[in-house]
This record gives sequence, C-alpha cells and structure tokens, in this order.
Amino acid sequence: MLSFLRSDLAQLIAYTPHPGGALDSPGGKKPTQIDRVDTNESPYDLPAALKEKLAWTYQQEIETNRYPDGSHASLKQAIAEYVNESAQLPDSPITATHISLGNGSDELIRSLLIATCLGGEGSILVAHPTFSMYGILAQTLGIPVVEVGRNETNFEIDIPAAQAAVANTQNPPIRVVFVVHPNSPTANALTKAELDWIRSLPPNILVAIDEAYFEFSQTSVVGELLQHPNWVVMRTFSKAFRLAALRVGYAIAHPELTATLEKVRLPYNLPAFSQIAASMAIAHRQELLSTIPEILTERDRFLKGLQPLQKFLLWPSAANFIYLRPNLQDQGATGPTLTRITEELKAQGTLIRHTGGGLRITLGTPEENHRTLSRLQEFNFGD
Amino acid sequence: MLSFLRSDLAQLIAYTPHPGGALDSPGGKKPTQIDRVDTNESPYDLPAALKEKLAWTYQQEIETNRYPDGSHASLKQAIAEYVNESAQLPDSPITATHISLGNGSDELIRSLLIATCLGGEGSILVAHPTFSMYGILAQTLGIPVVEVGRNETNFEIDIPAAQAAVANTQNPPIRVVFVVHPNSPTANALTKAELDWIRSLPPNILVAIDEAYFEFSQTSVVGELLQHPNWVVMRTFSKAFRLAALRVGYAIAHPELTATLEKVRLPYNLPAFSQIAASMAIAHRQELLSTIPEILTERDRFLKGLQPLQKFLLWPSAANFIYLRPNLQDQGATGPTLTRITEELKAQGTLIRHTGGGLRITLGTPEENHRTLSRLQEFNFGD
Repeated sequence: MLSFLRSDLAQLIAYTPHPGGALDSPGGKKPTQIDRVDTNESPYDLPAALKEKLAWTYQQEIETNRYPDGSHASLKQAIAEYVNESAQLPDSPITATHISLGNGSDELIRSLLIATCLGGEGSILVAHPTFSMYGILAQTLGIPVVEVGRNETNFEIDIPAAQAAVANTQNPPIRVVFVVHPNSPTANALTKAELDWIRSLPPNILVAIDEAYFEFSQTSVVGELLQHPNWVVMRTFSKAFRLAALRVGYAIAHPELTATLEKVRLPYNLPAFSQIAASMAIAHRQELLSTIPEILTERDRFLKGLQPLQKFLLWPSAANFIYLRPNLQDQGATGPTLTRITEELKAQGTLIRHTGGGLRITLGTPEENHRTLSRLQEFNFGD
Repeated sequence: MLSFLRSDLAQLIAYTPHPGGALDSPGGKKPTQIDRVDTNESPYDLPAALKEKLAWTYQQEIETNRYPDGSHASLKQAIAEYVNESAQLPDSPITATHISLGNGSDELIRSLLIATCLGGEGSILVAHPTFSMYGILAQTLGIPVVEVGRNETNFEIDIPAAQAAVANTQNPPIRVVFVVHPNSPTANALTKAELDWIRSLPPNILVAIDEAYFEFSQTSVVGELLQHPNWVVMRTFSKAFRLAALRVGYAIAHPELTATLEKVRLPYNLPAFSQIAASMAIAHRQELLSTIPEILTERDRFLKGLQPLQKFLLWPSAANFIYLRPNLQDQGATGPTLTRITEELKAQGTLIRHTGGGLRITLGTPEENHRTLSRLQEFNFGD
C-alpha cells in the first residue's frame, strides 16, 4: 500500500455500473441482441433530426479550444422556466439563482456532502434499499453513513427508526437525509407519512430529494421547496430527457445553498457540448417527453403479464422501471434465485439489475419488454 | 447562514475564470474585437474537417440516451501510447493501468486531495505564485495549505523554505507537494535543483507534477515516473490539443495510485462526446500539434518586441504564455500599475491576466499578439 493514501480507502468498494460483469460468457456463447434494461435510461436516442441539429450547432457555435461557460447562465434560466412550467407553479417562483448544475447528479451529491458534512461535521441518513451513490460518495469523503430500513409492504422508510437515528446519532450528528422520489430500486414515490416526516425535520438538517424520475412520476416536492430552506431537489437530463451520455444534472434550492454549491464545484464542470445539448433538450421537451405515455403503458402491460404467474412478488411503480422478487416460501433461496435469474437472462441477452434483495428492470422498447417478459415467464424456479 | 452548511466555507473565495470581470465597461463603450489571451488556451479551434468528423461520429456512434463508457478503456490505451511516444520511452513502459482520466485536471486534483489528505490526514505544499486551483480545491475540502515563496530571479521554488515546511509541518503533516512544470503564471520549467529536491522527497509524500503545458515545453518527468511510486504527472487536452470546451485531463502514476483515483472519482465522469473527441485528438495529434512551432516563434518575437523598451521586467518562457512585471523603481506602485494596464488593455479589447504580482499573457494568433504587443508598448506609465 502506497503510504500517502488514506488507509480507509482500501476497504472501499467503488460503484459498479454493470455488477453482472462483462457480457462475454465463459462458455463463449454470446447473445447477438443485447437488451440493456439495467440502468434506467430511456430506450430511445434523440431523434435523428435533433442529433443533426446538435452536431451542426457544435460545428457552428462551439470553439472547441476555449473553456466552456463556467456560469451556465442561459441554461440555468431555461431550467428554472422548465421547473416552474412542469410543476405548474404560478408566478414562476423558481429563478436561475435557485439552480446549480453538475456533471450528472453525482457531482451535485458530492458537492452537497462536501458543503455540509466534511471534516467530522455530519453523518448522512439513507433508507436501504436506495440509490447506492449517496453512501459510496460519502465513504470516499470519510463521512459516516447511517442506514435504516423500509417497510417491506410498500417500501416506505421506517420512519420511527429514521426519527430515532436523527435523535440519537452523535459525533457527528445527522446533517443530511437523502431520499429518492420515486425511490430506486423500489419505484415507490414518497408517501404522505414520508412527506410529513421530511417536513418535520429541523432547519439544521438538509433534506436532499432526488427526483431523477420526475418526468415519469409527475410528482414533485418543488411546489413546497421555497418554504423549506433546508430542502434541495435534484434532477437529471439522463433519464426522460435521453442525455445520459452527456452528464447533466441540476439542483433546485435556496439561493444560499446554490451559491455554496457553485463555490464548491469545479469551475468548468460542464463541457460546452453538454450545455448546448441540455438547452436543446429543454427547447424540444415536448418532443422528447412524448415517449413517456408509451413507457407508462408498457409498464402496466409488463406488470399485468407477470401477475397471473404468481412466480413473483410485484409492487406498483411510479417510475420507468419495476421492482420484483421471487415468490418463494423458502426465504433463504431468494438470493441464489435472483442470481440465477440475472445470469440466465444475461445469457439470453437481457441485462437486468440484481440489487437491494430484488430485481430492478427498466422499461425498454415494446420489443425489449416483450423479450424480458417472456424470459421471466419461462424462467424455471424448480431447477 | 443556513445552519447545515460548513461554517468555514463562508470565507472561501471561489476560482474566478476572468477576474477582470464582465466585458461591458461602465462607460458603455465596448470593443468590437476581443482578444482572449488570459486563459492559456490554444488560439486555434479544431480544423473544420475534424469538427465535422467529430460531429458525424457523434451522430453515427453515440447513443445519447445511454451512459458513457465508465471504464475509458480505449482512451486510456491511446493516451498510454501517446505518453510513451512523446517522451520517446523505449519498450513502452506506460500502459493503460498507469492512466486515470478526469473531467479536466481539476477533477484529478480533487481526487488526489481526497485520496491522500482528507479527514485531517495531510496538508499540501505549494510555492506561490502558482496555479491557484490546488489551494482552492484543498480549502473546499478543509485541507490546510502551506505556502512557500519563489526566488524572484528565476521563480525557482525556495527550496530551503520548502524543505523546512516538509520537516516542520505537523497536525497534519505535508502529504502532497504540487508543482507545475512549467509553472503558471511564471512560465519556468523545473530546474535541476527543483528536480533533485522532488527526487529526494520521502515515499510518504506524494509529488504531483502538473505538465499541462508539456506539448509547448517538450520537457517532462515521465521518463523517471516508474522509479518513483510517489509521483503523479497530470496532463490535459485543454491546451495544445485544443479541447478546453470538452474537459478532459489525465493522470499518469503507479497502478495502485491510479486504482485509487478510479475508486474515488465519479463513475461516469467523462461524457461520451468528450471521450471520442480526446481519442480523435490523439489520432490526429500531428495535425493538432503542428501549430506549436508558430506559437513558440511568436513567443520569441513578443519578448524581443518588449525588451528594448525597458518598461517591463521579462522572464524566459517554456510555455505558451509569458510573464512580466512593470519595471518600476517604486515597488509600491506595481500593484496599481498592473491593475491600470489590465484595465486599459481590456478597454482596448485585450484580456490578460493580472496574477501573482505580475501579468500573464497567452500567445494568441500572430494578429492578436501584434495587437497585445502594440498596446503594451504604447501603455503610458507616467499617468
């Protein structure tokens, strides 16, 4: 071990985008058609005309040799307008001063952690299972992570446990609570009880509400944001807006918090191409978001296709993915069964995600969903 | 002040890309031609054919809706080959395992700080004046910054002071020494004495050598890197490779250090468009680097044009920028004079950088250099 490295990093396990590993199977047989329904992206690239426009704009307007606009001024303005419009907020209360942009939401999560908890000033609270990056990024920064569970009926946060953790965690106390709305991997939106709980949190605890799937759920806390200076909402262009390749996320919060995020972030964190792509995505939002109804219809069809089998425990979804578990009497067999399903589907060409004690499956194109559904229906539990 | 924010961040001053402020002058008169010779970029965009090829590759090969390759495998391989070739290293000792990529070198600097100093484990050492991001990013992370000076004759680091700082700094000790080779803003490459000093540093101190201007200086420590597991070299595509808009930097180091950088970084830190642009820049390196001789010739011409006036103290440059100070008897007048020069040139349409007690001026196109030179020659010290 190089002696200048922090010793606690040796134990850290990094985020693995595809925990199933490389696609080359040891037997050498590789499926020709790969359905990537494991990372919750939109199945659709930008329309060809829009890609062409973006490519043209790059050629005409971006000086590749010059640093990008580090202020993100025009993009922030466009985002603020979209936030007001999409939440149907009267009098456009969200302005550019409420917005801060990141290299994906990942950079915003890191900046929030740096701005609040570093140097022994705070711990974070998460409810397992949830998006793993909060915990991973906290660990890279040496920030303690307190985990509570969820109700296994509807995956609501175990509020009494969370409340007790907030009350009892010392050295350092809980400084940030991370929630996802709707949650990943379990696809449930915040319930009234959860919303009441985050409303009740004191002003010295930051509540980070990750609305990565807002365009699918159409449910948001943005309308209440300005009443809560200790709330921050995170959004992304990586899901419904189809820009995962280009890494643009944004935070909506009190101007004092966004000013701190601006101070803490890298000065040129957003490439010029990513900035024009995000601006263009907002300008063409009607076209880009027009595939959402199809995805939601597919979601219902998918769940209806699995229901009669009784092979799986299913939950309703407020997002572009579904969460399920095998319906087994023998609870001890769940883990190995999930591994078998994941590997068998992978061998057939369908990548899904085994996480949080279940399977998370993204809604893809109708053809992809049809194949995924058939493969799940045909999976033989009895082996 | 929002009570969940770290109180020490209130004092922090963020990096200001253009400290001269916005271009709109209070008098309302705005120059029509702006020469941006303040940020050390190449004055030349990619050739039109290459922009077209890049735009076409985006349209044909990038699925905008999919997350980018988080492993950067092919780009790392290409960079390793370029590093071996450009340093004329026999037997290609640098491999992809020695490379880690960042959202500009800025992200690599942050990752190095996180990997070594966080949680009270280390301080950093810098020699003023130098690139300000080391200190700024350290402060955002609550990491103490120890500053020593430089010899004012040739801007060599004050080695006895640096040695004393390493010996005497406690709680926490110096864990990283940052040097720039050649230094910004003073444009001097590391001297033999400085190289001997960094060679003498013990294995528990990381030496970060920023070679952002390598393609202009053609001097590198990479040939010695594998003998020093406590050295890391940083490079960038933002200068000679003309990709500042797209934010790609890389580190070259011992595989155990690069593995830690990979663990600490954001999993999808490089947009797909930036990755293909960097790969293309390496493939077309001969064409892109072909403007360097012109820039070096311009540098000599620029210095020769200023020399006879005796108005400025001048230093030799190993980079694509020059550093100068007004030649004044009254040392107290230097600061105000630098401010006057910067503002007068800005009013005329030339942006230069007032930093580290002097002026840093990037070599631009011959026309830009001609204008900058004339404006400096005509500047009236007597006001």
